[in-house]
Amino acid sequence: MNGNDGRGTSSRRISYSDLEKRQLVRGAKPGNRFVRVQPSQEFYRTGPGWLVPRPDVVEPKGLLGRLRRLIVGRPIPSALEVHERLNKIKGLAVLSSDAISSVAYGPEATMRILITAGLAYLSFTWPIAIAIALLIAIVAFSYRQTIKAYPSGGGSYIVASENLGPIPGLVAASSLLFDYILTVAVSIASGTAAITSLFPRLLPYTVEITVAAILFIMIVNLRGIRESGTVFTLPPYVFIVSVYVTILVGLYKLTLGGGIHYTPPPSAVHPGGRQFGLLLLLAAFSEGCSAMTGTEAIANGVPAFKPPEWRNARTTMSWMAIILATLVLGVGFLATHMHVLPATDETVLSQIGRSIFGPGPMWWVLQVSTALILVLAATTAFMDFPRLMSILAKDRYAPRVFQYRGDRLAFTSGIIALSVVAIVLELVFKGSVEKLIPLYAVGVFTSFTLSQAGMVVHWRRERERGWRRSAIINGVGAVITGIVTLIIGITKFTHGAWLVIVLVPVAVLTLWAIHKHYVRLETTRKTEIPMDPQQIRLRAVVPIRDLGVQAKQAVAFAQAITRQNAQVVAVHVEDDPQEAEELRKAWYRWNPEVELLIIESPYRSLLRPLLAYISALKETYPDDTVVVVLPEFVPSHWWEQLLHNQTALRIKAALLFYPGVVVANVPYHLEK
Amino acid sequence: MNGNDGRGTSSRRISYSDLEKRQLVRGAKPGNRFVRVQPSQEFYRTGPGWLVPRPDVVEPKGLLGRLRRLIVGRPIPSALEVHERLNKIKGLAVLSSDAISSVAYGPEATMRILITAGLAYLSFTWPIAIAIALLIAIVAFSYRQTIKAYPSGGGSYIVASENLGPIPGLVAASSLLFDYILTVAVSIASGTAAITSLFPRLLPYTVEITVAAILFIMIVNLRGIRESGTVFTLPPYVFIVSVYVTILVGLYKLTLGGGIHYTPPPSAVHPGGRQFGLLLLLAAFSEGCSAMTGTEAIANGVPAFKPPEWRNARTTMSWMAIILATLVLGVGFLATHMHVLPATDETVLSQIGRSIFGPGPMWWVLQVSTALILVLAATTAFMDFPRLMSILAKDRYAPRVFQYRGDRLAFTSGIIALSVVAIVLELVFKGSVEKLIPLYAVGVFTSFTLSQAGMVVHWRRERERGWRRSAIINGVGAVITGIVTLIIGITKFTHGAWLVIVLVPVAVLTLWAIHKHYVRLETTRKTEIPMDPQQIRLRAVVPIRDLGVQAKQAVAFAQAITRQNAQVVAVHVEDDPQEAEELRKAWYRWNPEVELLIIESPYRSLLRPLLAYISALKETYPDDTVVVVLPEFVPSHWWEQLLHNQTALRIKAALLFYPGVVVANVPYHLEK
Repeated sequence: MNGNDGRGTSSRRISYSDLEKRQLVRGAKPGNRFVRVQPSQEFYRTGPGWLVPRPDVVEPKGLLGRLRRLIVGRPIPSALEVHERLNKIKGLAVLSSDAISSVAYGPEATMRILITAGLAYLSFTWPIAIAIALLIAIVAFSYRQTIKAYPSGGGSYIVASENLGPIPGLVAASSLLFDYILTVAVSIASGTAAITSLFPRLLPYTVEITVAAILFIMIVNLRGIRESGTVFTLPPYVFIVSVYVTILVGLYKLTLGGGIHYTPPPSAVHPGGRQFGLLLLLAAFSEGCSAMTGTEAIANGVPAFKPPEWRNARTTMSWMAIILATLVLGVGFLATHMHVLPATDETVLSQIGRSIFGPGPMWWVLQVSTALILVLAATTAFMDFPRLMSILAKDRYAPRVFQYRGDRLAFTSGIIALSVVAIVLELVFKGSVEKLIPLYAVGVFTSFTLSQAGMVVHWRRERERGWRRSAIINGVGAVITGIVTLIIGITKFTHGAWLVIVLVPVAVLTLWAIHKHYVRLETTRKTEIPMDPQQIRLRAVVPIRDLGVQAKQAVAFAQAITRQNAQVVAVHVEDDPQEAEELRKAWYRWNPEVELLIIESPYRSLLRPLLAYISALKETYPDDTVVVVLPEFVPSHWWEQLLHNQTALRIKAALLFYPGVVVANVPYHLEK
Repeated sequence: MNGNDGRGTSSRRISYSDLEKRQLVRGAKPGNRFVRVQPSQEFYRTGPGWLVPRPDVVEPKGLLGRLRRLIVGRPIPSALEVHERLNKIKGLAVLSSDAISSVAYGPEATMRILITAGLAYLSFTWPIAIAIALLIAIVAFSYRQTIKAYPSGGGSYIVASENLGPIPGLVAASSLLFDYILTVAVSIASGTAAITSLFPRLLPYTVEITVAAILFIMIVNLRGIRESGTVFTLPPYVFIVSVYVTILVGLYKLTLGGGIHYTPPPSAVHPGGRQFGLLLLLAAFSEGCSAMTGTEAIANGVPAFKPPEWRNARTTMSWMAIILATLVLGVGFLATHMHVLPATDETVLSQIGRSIFGPGPMWWVLQVSTALILVLAATTAFMDFPRLMSILAKDRYAPRVFQYRGDRLAFTSGIIALSVVAIVLELVFKGSVEKLIPLYAVGVFTSFTLSQAGMVVHWRRERERGWRRSAIINGVGAVITGIVTLIIGITKFTHGAWLVIVLVPVAVLTLWAIHKHYVRLETTRKTEIPMDPQQIRLRAVVPIRDLGVQAKQAVAFAQAITRQNAQVVAVHVEDDPQEAEELRKAWYRWNPEVELLIIESPYRSLLRPLLAYISALKETYPDDTVVVVLPEFVPSHWWEQLLHNQTALRIKAALLFYPGVVVANVPYHLEK
């Protein structure tokens, strides 16, 4: 994680980058004496017991290395990791594209539900927009508290697990994980929709486009991205501005400038005749709530801000909330009063833009910036998912692989895992926003609720000045988001939410099982070999086929590690009795001190009698450590492998499951 | 190979079977004291340094074992191998089914060529049959010499390599190998034809039937067969008798009983208009020569006969030759004078039988016995191919695997290899005899020629009484078979013989390369580790991630094998500097004697810095033996594997290519 802080703490050491700066790495310099590797100038001691390898000896090599370099670029040393802090402007762009981009599908989702009850009910889009705007305000306000309390980054997982205990923490974590996955799926799908609204000819290739986009973002992320790059800063603002312009021009035309001429696209959805009622209204509202996904991003990323971090983050949070709320209100208002109809081939936002500006440059700008900000939203998910996975891995809730960073400082495994799952989703749901949305938001609001609730507990514990006020604010947030979670869960259940509601517990259980496994591993004390070298009594078994050099080497090694020859025995499993007999004679001519045992193999199996003998030996001397010294032949050409039936390998594999049996491979290389 | 003889020689030992007979194996008996494995009564000393395991401890176990048992049956102890000798009656049946069955396709092959020149030329079938009969006589006569000279079995490979040198030996061997493969392919294809002639409805499934048949024979052979079984004895005689009856009845009807009414089948081949000439005649002859495949079988199998082996074998050889010759003559004569036309849906033999007996029981007997003897022919190839492979493997010309016998005393690998290749052939050539035949016979006659030539050299060397006469006989045989080989090679070249003519040299080169490899391996003397244990200086490197039990065990083991702690170093490749720092502290609290090295990993790779360090160490102390002691975690559930990125495995794989570096795995098993 925080490589540099680490280096900061241990003053005794000079870091790799320092060496590089002082150009010590390329050649020996006085004062940097080599450590136990005199001739080969490959390591530098940078402190008692600290070695730094010369970069060129540890750079990835070989075909695979080159291939990887081609795709993800040259590896970056940890030391060169950049920790550029974000000012408010950049912070807003980087951390809120996920939330703000949701405007592109949130209101539309509402309308798709309403229209199932009939045209008239579309007018509810506007009030629902208001409700959502309020919700945004509440959640944002509540998160401002979190930001202050967790300047080191208050992700729902951290807040929940610290204040509510591990299980709620895991629930928050897994809902977030699903949320991130869906952010990628939905954002990419909806970004594609923005493009296909521009070029309907691309419609048939929707799925292909989404998959390609995900793969592209995956590679970009594997190469590692500098969050502060302009590529991140520009599109969000272009999007925000163009949507504002759309809203303003729209409002103007609707009020003073004689109205807007709206022609619904041919693919406009036909109004359904569903019974209208509270449930439908709530359903519409739930769908709309997908507009709020990503709100927590700023609260997670406090440390990324320039100091004073928490203050900057807080302000940015407020800005984001205001922008998001106004956009939702604006789009909701226009959609309602322009009587826009949701369609299958064109997004609502695109329809609004087209009708207000006509199919001209402004409409294009709107569409393209929409697509871009949605891609950015996906990218942020690509940063959050692996980061959360690595935190979980560090806490031993996820497989270790997720903890390590790849050549380019990115969490390779997490990125790849995310892409795979997201691609699967796109394939299963044919890249349709409409079908994906119902899965969305449940996770988000679950984590909202848990982190707010966590905050309440936090305040009650800390009891700082004015803790009551904060507790109340978070309490309100918790209650309301809790209610919304329930609403979403119920109204969307049959439409796919059930999947998430089933998967979250499964995920929690899995994480928990993994944790138990690691803990068991770390806390166990039983050993198979005495911890005290003095107590280790060795018995070496050397399986041999003939008296070749490999065998002799292995026997010599066995004698070397067990000083007494009495504790070494060479074992030959008989295949041809005559050969065995000859081997016996040759053996005692060569090395009479070490005993050679010939085991008959009634069924001509080389492996079984040997294993039987070893386990018998182990039974006989339970306290001794049996070392099986395997002469291993390493061919110089691949095809030579075929000429040696891989007995050594099979013996190794089998012995893996014999407690207290050490396997030592004495290699023998046939030079080319 | 000859398991029992081996046991015979070493008088000091009592064999496994003896123990079994004396029921010593099941429980301890006075006089059979246990060897270095007191408590577990699992091994018996049967001589100084000879152990016999209790059968139940070495019987194949586990799912795979049970599965194998289901298919190939319970394993058979080598001791129970049966060496029943064959009398002439059985010998003829077992060893000549390959040769005699060739009557089923030989003459027909001739006719298929002749008819391409026109109906009239079919009459040449008869003279060609006579020529082939003569050829049989010569070859048989010549082989009678071999039998006498090589009572231990005079396979072409042995004779050729002993008298003409290794390369001719390999040429003979590889031609024989191809010959055996083709025997299987052709016999099965032609056996299928015999059946489809009975049931034309099966024609579309020809390929499926051939493949199924081969798989069936494969399994039967894997189970191991007693050559002397009646299953082998009966069908050949039924076939021989029924063909003779067909010929006699046919001759009778043609001469005294007013002729045979022959109606060509609808699928009869239409006569072509090819230019008739010597070349075509020779081509037809070459095709006919496929009737001689398998003639050498008896000469190979001399030791299988009851004593006096060579005399019995010789007589059998003469019988076989006479039977084969007469059958070829008879079938040739009938085919010619009945004006039978080769057809695509019915074999010539079947047509003859049908027209002579009508579609009644006799015809059925003929067809079924044909199919059976052809299956037996394939089966004999299934015994010869693996046997030859194992001889080659023993002489280090083929991979070792082929030398070992499986659970049921059969040469598993050889059998499987043969089946695979044969199946491929059936698939490629759509199970058509017509298409396969051209590949055939080249190999056979090459090996004929070589072994005859070998015999000439043999006689000249031995110079026994009357060696000139023998030399002349074999010389004539060699010259004639040589000429025939050329004829076949030339006339069939374009029809597929080229394939064999290309593949034989390839095979020879391969065998040769394999031999060179093994010899190089056996003769090499250079070692990576001193042969004298006194000279071995050990340096142990213990890669560790944390201070878990695995690590501690491994370090203790390292200390135990290298008495001085100075020669042990634990290496931790840094991932997180803070963790590393904590590890350092913990380490020196635990075990200050052993040095812990922490290697920075600029690119966060665990593997590369470690390898760089090890090779640097090896460079620094070229004469020392570096032992990398790997703590290896062995999970108790398969899924736990996923939770440990397989660093240990990758380290092992990488170190495999570091000369003089021993890898010792100290396992650590997490109990269930």
